[in-house]
Amino acid sequence: MDNHKLLELFEERDGQFVSGEAISQELHVSRTAVWKQIRKLELLGYQFEASRKLGYKLVYKPDRLSEEELAERNKARSFGRSVTLLDEVDSTQEIARALAEEDAPEGTLVIAEQQVKGRGRMGREWVSPSGKGIWMSMVLRPQVPIHFAPQLTLVTAVALCRSLTRVTGLQIGIKWPNDLQINGKKISGILLESAAEDERLRYVIAGIGISANLETGDYPEEMLAKATSLRIQSGTVYDRTAIIADFMEEWEQLYWLYQREGFEKIAALWEALSVSLHRPAVLITPQGVVEGVPVGLHSSGAIIVEQSDGTRAVVFSADMGEPSA
Amino acid sequence: MDNHKLLELFEERDGQFVSGEAISQELHVSRTAVWKQIRKLELLGYQFEASRKLGYKLVYKPDRLSEEELAERNKARSFGRSVTLLDEVDSTQEIARALAEEDAPEGTLVIAEQQVKGRGRMGREWVSPSGKGIWMSMVLRPQVPIHFAPQLTLVTAVALCRSLTRVTGLQIGIKWPNDLQINGKKISGILLESAAEDERLRYVIAGIGISANLETGDYPEEMLAKATSLRIQSGTVYDRTAIIADFMEEWEQLYWLYQREGFEKIAALWEALSVSLHRPAVLITPQGVVEGVPVGLHSSGAIIVEQSDGTRAVVFSADMGEPSA
Repeated sequence: MDNHKLLELFEERDGQFVSGEAISQELHVSRTAVWKQIRKLELLGYQFEASRKLGYKLVYKPDRLSEEELAERNKARSFGRSVTLLDEVDSTQEIARALAEEDAPEGTLVIAEQQVKGRGRMGREWVSPSGKGIWMSMVLRPQVPIHFAPQLTLVTAVALCRSLTRVTGLQIGIKWPNDLQINGKKISGILLESAAEDERLRYVIAGIGISANLETGDYPEEMLAKATSLRIQSGTVYDRTAIIADFMEEWEQLYWLYQREGFEKIAALWEALSVSLHRPAVLITPQGVVEGVPVGLHSSGAIIVEQSDGTRAVVFSADMGEPSA
Repeated sequence: MDNHKLLELFEERDGQFVSGEAISQELHVSRTAVWKQIRKLELLGYQFEASRKLGYKLVYKPDRLSEEELAERNKARSFGRSVTLLDEVDSTQEIARALAEEDAPEGTLVIAEQQVKGRGRMGREWVSPSGKGIWMSMVLRPQVPIHFAPQLTLVTAVALCRSLTRVTGLQIGIKWPNDLQINGKKISGILLESAAEDERLRYVIAGIGISANLETGDYPEEMLAKATSLRIQSGTVYDRTAIIADFMEEWEQLYWLYQREGFEKIAALWEALSVSLHRPAVLITPQGVVEGVPVGLHSSGAIIVEQSDGTRAVVFSADMGEPSA
């Protein structure tokens, strides 16, 4: 007996009690098998009310992704066509990297309902509770030399921002280089890991976390000033499959646009969506602090900052914040 | 009993027979222990003449590297200060990468007497027989953004070319981007593998193969037109420890020069040592064939090729050959 049939039966009865006897007869299995299957579903987050007289009633159905449903709704040609969906992992990046080393094709996607050791940029912690967010990593095999890798980060950020804006109707901006924000709070992070041999990119693993349906209680108190979710912002619970499917299509299109025509059009889209330009900022770089007004993207994917003395600095890597006074 | 004492004893007797009895007395071990140790040394490539009456005579001593000797002769501050020396490995790159993932510090060096699956650029086979070449990989943790990684390949090529020229007195040139040649034949290959997180290089593994003391018989017949060794070119058997020690020092100096002052000085050195400039060439790139005269290095580490119509192409990755007619 699989989950599917039992769940279908409960859905047909729509919130009513179903006796173990009836399930057993309808699905042609023993009552012990029914009991075992209910236990399994409970471990996956389903909740039942049990009554000795009346049987079982499904009272809570967790939002769970399904490979079949995603395959059906994803219209992209290669992005997300091969999906590995896992319940709980240390990090989807590690699994995608292992797949890439085993020659997994471009577009291979790893999604986890929950990450135990999810990481953001520079090894920072990333909250990724079960069934509420979208935690995924994809194998890319871009035909560009290594020094264009930072541009791929921006391609990914632009695609995700456009897609999420379309699906949710929320006003989402990109903070350089690749955080998505609503009202100054982070709703999504992107991390690209590259493996190269000399100037040739062997593969890139794009890790994407989207705080879709997280609630305020999912965050440590001190994070709520800086982090939020689509649900907290709009009060809506989102269909995660719809978000993934739309993003796959948008991302694939921009990725091919980028490979065909170069970075220029992507840079223009990025600048239009950015919340980091034309406002004073402080950039903490490995080489020191740069203060000034970010005015645009450099062709390398770096940001150009106009400093108070009129000179321009090109910043490749930094933590960007607001001036303190 | 360790190898060291037994070998010292044979060296004192300088090519003379030493009886098992004498060895046993001098080293305070049983004659069985002496016999076992002789067998072990034979497995490492040492050859003995054995006589029931006279005992043993050391007739061939293989060239073997020693961590202690290298530590003593290497004057670099961090490059090669931590050395893992192995008899036989699949590839030193893999071992160095595993060490890097375990936070091995910059300069950590892996050397193998023999590589079973040595690889050159683009997965090509690389001849690396036991005890005759220098097959090594080093962990680098450069504080530069990812798009400067190709410059590191050139830093490494310049350092190796300068060091080998000094140690051997041979005339060695650099073929773009990073092969070393004598009389148009390859004597050394360099392969840099990078691991990056967004624009930040996590580490780089620099793999270097030097065909030091290989003889013509070590190469498949068909390779001799393109490959050679320092020994074949000069008739001299080189002290591999001296080559490694000198290179460590030169490489470290140029690496720090590069990190401190940027690529300009390295580019000038590279251009001076290059055999690829100012002669017509055909470059087979992933995007197609470029024909023309390479005229200099681009700041990214790419090569600038002047084409017959006067336009200049910037080539990031290619196989460079001579025009066919």
